[in-house]
Amino acid sequence: MKISAFRKAHFNAAHRLNVPQWTDEKNKEFFGLCNNPNYHGHNYDLVVKVTGEVDPVSGYLIDLKILKEIIDEEVIERFDHRNLNLDTVEFKNLNPTAENIAGVIWNKIRLRLDKNLELTVTLYETERNYVEYSGE
Amino acid sequence: MKISAFRKAHFNAAHRLNVPQWTDEKNKEFFGLCNNPNYHGHNYDLVVKVTGEVDPVSGYLIDLKILKEIIDEEVIERFDHRNLNLDTVEFKNLNPTAENIAGVIWNKIRLRLDKNLELTVTLYETERNYVEYSGE
Amino acid sequence: MKISAFRKAHFNAAHRLNVPQWTDEKNKEFFGLCNNPNYHGHNYDLVVKVTGEVDPVSGYLIDLKILKEIIDEEVIERFDHRNLNLDTVEFKNLNPTAENIAGVIWNKIRLRLDKNLELTVTLYETERNYVEYSGE
Amino acid sequence: MKISAFRKAHFNAAHRLNVPQWTDEKNKEFFGLCNNPNYHGHNYDLVVKVTGEVDPVSGYLIDLKILKEIIDEEVIERFDHRNLNLDTVEFKNLNPTAENIAGVIWNKIRLRLDKNLELTVTLYETERNYVEYSGE
Amino acid sequence: MKISAFRKAHFNAAHRLNVPQWTDEKNKEFFGLCNNPNYHGHNYDLVVKVTGEVDPVSGYLIDLKILKEIIDEEVIERFDHRNLNLDTVEFKNLNPTAENIAGVIWNKIRLRLDKNLELTVTLYETERNYVEYSGE
Amino acid sequence: MKISAFRKAHFNAAHRLNVPQWTDEKNKEFFGLCNNPNYHGHNYDLVVKVTGEVDPVSGYLIDLKILKEIIDEEVIERFDHRNLNLDTVEFKNLNPTAENIAGVIWNKIRLRLDKNLELTVTLYETERNYVEYSGE
Repeated sequence: MKISAFRKAHFNAAHRLNVPQWTDEKNKEFFGLCNNPNYHGHNYDLVVKVTGEVDPVSGYLIDLKILKEIIDEEVIERFDHRNLNLDTVEFKNLNPTAENIAGVIWNKIRLRLDKNLELTVTLYETERNYVEYSGE
Repeated sequence: MKISAFRKAHFNAAHRLNVPQWTDEKNKEFFGLCNNPNYHGHNYDLVVKVTGEVDPVSGYLIDLKILKEIIDEEVIERFDHRNLNLDTVEFKNLNPTAENIAGVIWNKIRLRLDKNLELTVTLYETERNYVEYSGE
Repeated sequence: MKISAFRKAHFNAAHRLNVPQWTDEKNKEFFGLCNNPNYHGHNYDLVVKVTGEVDPVSGYLIDLKILKEIIDEEVIERFDHRNLNLDTVEFKNLNPTAENIAGVIWNKIRLRLDKNLELTVTLYETERNYVEYSGE
Repeated sequence: MKISAFRKAHFNAAHRLNVPQWTDEKNKEFFGLCNNPNYHGHNYDLVVKVTGEVDPVSGYLIDLKILKEIIDEEVIERFDHRNLNLDTVEFKNLNPTAENIAGVIWNKIRLRLDKNLELTVTLYETERNYVEYSGE
Repeated sequence: MKISAFRKAHFNAAHRLNVPQWTDEKNKEFFGLCNNPNYHGHNYDLVVKVTGEVDPVSGYLIDLKILKEIIDEEVIERFDHRNLNLDTVEFKNLNPTAENIAGVIWNKIRLRLDKNLELTVTLYETERNYVEYSGE
Repeated sequence: MKISAFRKAHFNAAHRLNVPQWTDEKNKEFFGLCNNPNYHGHNYDLVVKVTGEVDPVSGYLIDLKILKEIIDEEVIERFDHRNLNLDTVEFKNLNPTAENIAGVIWNKIRLRLDKNLELTVTLYETERNYVEYSGE
């Protein structure tokens, strides 16, 4: 029996969208208000989806308490109440767009999961703007 | 890196479900209250999902401000605060079920998107009833 | 022990905002898209709040199943899937603004409730626009 | 035109997670608070997704009122306000994890649907923990 | 400057509504499915509202981390994943209606708060049924 | 007929909680992660509640399009995608706690409203933490 289990988490962070190899004018025009040099911020909602076979004895795909611990260690403890551009190594040289944040989170959680499990992450930057990444 | 980006939008409209080639009795029996000749209405929530390759320089799949403009021009300006049956050409001869509205919206947005991008639209007629269309 | 109990309900309706004693131009300018002569519509969310003394034996302020029945009879059966302007006596000569709809609903539910209970209704026209009325 | 239609439903139930062939200690360690011998409970939210061809005349994939009736008969009438472990035959010998509840619901609804329709069920145990099953 | 600060929390519990001095028939008739002798359950959402003067130096009414700790100790640790009727002293002889649960929670939090602060608790039994208590 | 009308808005901002007259240690201990010198951020949801007499001709308490314009000019254009500590005059010397942000917003909107209208603002810093201010 193949199933997907989902766990939702949350973190608050500041960020600024900027491409260093572009001029200030191009960055301002392309990213608009998101290019504010003094940063702005978001309440990020994260949904982690794990897919695989249900264990027939326990009836669990994965213990969601363990998945919560992985998310806490890999995402919340690193990014919550941080400035993504200044306080993290991951976005020192990577523009912290929702797409790139989702990619970074996917890679971190992937390393902690059993190989038999598939992984998708959905990252909400706002209630109206969000992205989804499955590692392809 | 293949990703999906989502943008949520909203419009309010009146509609009536009716099949002209059916008798009034059959329409009333089949569509129930939704067949009310004086129309009823909904707050439609729309989620537009676009899938493709992230640009490695900007870190964007698509500029969501541009996607918002496309949705505003193709959907909101045409359907918001309208009577779908009376005020639109799209549903003059097409029953405005959620399925058909989703199909119409998908076709309109598809024409405005780059060919390399895949498209799915989800249309909520109410919080409990909704449909999803990917162009198949 | 004085407590408030709340019951949430839902109906879908079409309406048009218009003041008959005004010119078409003034109506169009004042109500904008809401003046569309062919109507538009909403998913109305309704929250009914009842305040009074908890019965010390049952531990209930009011049986919410009975409150649900009152809401069904007074609101849902009259307004759901209706055109408020054309299909109801209440809004034949009353502009169906959220304010007036809330007032009409308050009066209808008030008549069905015990005199010792206070009543407030909150009516959501959209998730972002709503009104509250307590009978003052 | 291939589309998916969704219907959301809701039920409240008590349950206890326990594997009879394990010791009490192992059950307590593995399931934690969910192993409470006196049960705990949830407001389960259920989303039923049906996929297939839209009928070109009616513009419906499936009449959602009929889908609602199927969900009411197969799920709500059996599980709402029940103790899943004690009051149902389905979970007498099956651990009522979200995964297994989703599997049971999928099988019940599958039997009632036309063979040409695909089916996915999503079951929310809490807003933060949920599972999805498509019958694979 | 008088302000209100709110903190939202969550717990899952089983309960059964029953009045011991009533006959089984009367209990069944009055409480319906909620009288199920084997219990059912809910995801309870709790909103704690505290009102008072903002400290002009810190700009805080109350440190919400401290309010969270009070809620965790007084509510979550006692009631989460519990059977309210069997596992708690508070509802051994008190019918666990939403009204009574709100009253019990209000009294517990009241004892932990500064006398200058006013307190209101809102308890959601489901998204559609909830109660509010301010200690009057 | 006295009614309340509500309008919901949204802005994203970075901030840091810090009291200049305190030592770094005291700030860090008191505000915890919120004291991060590089800032963090939030999606702020704002609900503006206006109370007064409904105009008997139009059936409006206040034109919510006008209230939206006031909120856009006084709040969104000033604070959206800004660093509250660095990019605004309002929080140059005022700690941007939710309480103080609500107070600043209340004062700005109060100046734009008719004297006969009462005003309350509710500011959500996260879904679980929020404040309400009525000008007392």
